[in-house]
Amino acid sequence: MSDISPLAPDHFPAMPALQGVRLGAGEAAIRYQGRNDLMVVEMSPKTTVAGVFTRSLTASAPVEWCRKALSGGQAHVLIVNSGNANAFTGQAGVESVERTVEAAADLFSCRPSKVFVASTGVIGEPLADDKLTAALPALERGLDGDNWHAAAQAIMTTDTFAKGASRSAMIGDVQVTINGIAKGSGMIAPDMATMLAFVFTDADIPADSLQELLTNGCEKSFNAITVDSDTSTSDTLMLFATGQAGNDVAAPLDNFTAMLDELLIDLACQVVRDGEGATKFIAVTVHGAENDGAAKRIGLCIANSPLVKTAIAGEDANWGRIVMAVGKAGEKADRDKLAIDIGGIRVAADGMVVPGYDETPVAEHMKGQEIDILVDVGVGAGNATVWTCDLTHGYITINADYRS
Amino acid sequence: MSDISPLAPDHFPAMPALQGVRLGAGEAAIRYQGRNDLMVVEMSPKTTVAGVFTRSLTASAPVEWCRKALSGGQAHVLIVNSGNANAFTGQAGVESVERTVEAAADLFSCRPSKVFVASTGVIGEPLADDKLTAALPALERGLDGDNWHAAAQAIMTTDTFAKGASRSAMIGDVQVTINGIAKGSGMIAPDMATMLAFVFTDADIPADSLQELLTNGCEKSFNAITVDSDTSTSDTLMLFATGQAGNDVAAPLDNFTAMLDELLIDLACQVVRDGEGATKFIAVTVHGAENDGAAKRIGLCIANSPLVKTAIAGEDANWGRIVMAVGKAGEKADRDKLAIDIGGIRVAADGMVVPGYDETPVAEHMKGQEIDILVDVGVGAGNATVWTCDLTHGYITINADYRS
Repeated sequence: MSDISPLAPDHFPAMPALQGVRLGAGEAAIRYQGRNDLMVVEMSPKTTVAGVFTRSLTASAPVEWCRKALSGGQAHVLIVNSGNANAFTGQAGVESVERTVEAAADLFSCRPSKVFVASTGVIGEPLADDKLTAALPALERGLDGDNWHAAAQAIMTTDTFAKGASRSAMIGDVQVTINGIAKGSGMIAPDMATMLAFVFTDADIPADSLQELLTNGCEKSFNAITVDSDTSTSDTLMLFATGQAGNDVAAPLDNFTAMLDELLIDLACQVVRDGEGATKFIAVTVHGAENDGAAKRIGLCIANSPLVKTAIAGEDANWGRIVMAVGKAGEKADRDKLAIDIGGIRVAADGMVVPGYDETPVAEHMKGQEIDILVDVGVGAGNATVWTCDLTHGYITINADYRS
Repeated sequence: MSDISPLAPDHFPAMPALQGVRLGAGEAAIRYQGRNDLMVVEMSPKTTVAGVFTRSLTASAPVEWCRKALSGGQAHVLIVNSGNANAFTGQAGVESVERTVEAAADLFSCRPSKVFVASTGVIGEPLADDKLTAALPALERGLDGDNWHAAAQAIMTTDTFAKGASRSAMIGDVQVTINGIAKGSGMIAPDMATMLAFVFTDADIPADSLQELLTNGCEKSFNAITVDSDTSTSDTLMLFATGQAGNDVAAPLDNFTAMLDELLIDLACQVVRDGEGATKFIAVTVHGAENDGAAKRIGLCIANSPLVKTAIAGEDANWGRIVMAVGKAGEKADRDKLAIDIGGIRVAADGMVVPGYDETPVAEHMKGQEIDILVDVGVGAGNATVWTCDLTHGYITINADYRS
């Protein structure tokens, strides 16, 4: 196994039990031996659900199932396995999902459309769903509200640490809890990975509002991170609301939205911190773009540039490569007003290096683990922040030297 | 200096003198010492010119000059320096170009708008145009029709070999010659590089036809290669026609077009073969896309995927990553009709690995230096081929371990 990422948080966070959610983790031995590879979550009746899925046109069978089931707006069971992605498996993959869903629907006495599934792991091999369904009854008996850490561990593939986050929020005068877990260490890692995130709350929120909150939150978090610009066939982000907290459904959701966004960014940044071979966590903020969308596209262009990412790996404050990345983004930028700050220090302004530029403090910033880049492209009021990691020999070693 | 790329051609090609073109290479010591860093080409009166330039919105001052000068349709002098790109140099960069152009216009007794310039090298530092112009008179005295190899060497930056190609073509019953030189070893290499290519012919072709030929040819060659998906601020491709061969300007250009396209692909592939850290030359052909443009976008998506490129570096026939890259291209593809051949061997068909897949011959192909990938996406008749190289530890070493 890999060493833990140098950018990992100190420890898995404290995550309180959440009314209406019980979790379990178990060993189905689908591919891995001697570790949990199956997570089951049971949610109380009337739980609402929202989801955001990969834009890949070669999406996996589980993703297609979830997209369809989502139209019902309700969820009772979530089943996630690691070790096999059930992607590029043709009709066999579709049937594998159907058998899994039916077994869960029988076991938990619910309609199949209330069962959601996700799979992560190797692509192009049939999923041994018989092993998966055989493991379900024992898991069902062991479900517990406190199993967050075990659940986060069961869905890991090439991850070097389990990812979780918790927030509390107020809806009117009722306190609600939001818990989330995630996995991923590349947009797609070897052929063993993908990004999955599952968020649960005891708040009472109708499915359509929930979907709006999740879609908006995703734009600022999971859609604002990149490790290697690659897109998995299985990327899945889901939000479940059990309604057990008993809040007034008409109360404004401002604080809940803020806390949800914060939690999504927390989880998304944990995925970046586990980026394959990462040694630096990089925040790229773009100001002065034509609009926020343009700012984000410029930010992602910088964050995806192999030349920017390798320069940072080499602790080189190479602002010329940042200029290059701004130029290729295809968004409006004023070359002669462009300004760049690195680590809070102005490096370039008015399209040129600042007069008397002293690289010493910038070079010092580049030696740290947390790198901040600010670019002002000088044309408007659009802002965005995106997050990425550096591109190192470690990435090549993991992805080139690995044989499935 | 770097070792020569393992993918380099055996030798620089024989390039005949070409009526109306005289070249020179010399030492201006702009950045490099002890090597030629300046190339001058003088062309006969009435030479027509066409150009294709970077799409970067932070294009360099020389690129902006050439775009403007191109509207005249005529060229007399081309001046190219290596060592400094004169990019992101603000108003100082514009003035530097103007002084260079004026000095050349005086020396060669022509209008400034017939002088074309290109610069490649470090970004963001003022260009010492005084050194450049001081070196011009001696170069002018040494101009010669046979200096192709020296010219190609003078414009190198991180290139490990000089790049040239020559073809002859028939226009009506007149034989004409096409000679081209290029440099580049990344779409943009360290902060020391860019892609430049200059093609010359003695054919008599009006500027507007020449532009059409070059624009079309570029799409199939320089716009169909990628090393690291990054776009230089200075990418420049120019075509000059001296008209000295005396062909009938009304004769059809079919054979000339075919030979020009072949030469452009030859030069473009030489740039890929000098890709930073490259150990494998990869041709990606896409069939069955909605149209040719869609096929090319899918091909480039595969060719730019870090996960595909690292898998090839690791000699891993990882078709799962190819599927992933097809999915993220955003172009129509039928997941369940997708077929993949590697080295001419069918690996996947109908959206699944082929029954009884034997990896042995595919693994053998992956050990070679020339990798062929064919993907049929199963929706239409669109075809395209693109070229790239693998992503290796060498790329990281060159780009991360380098400090300017």
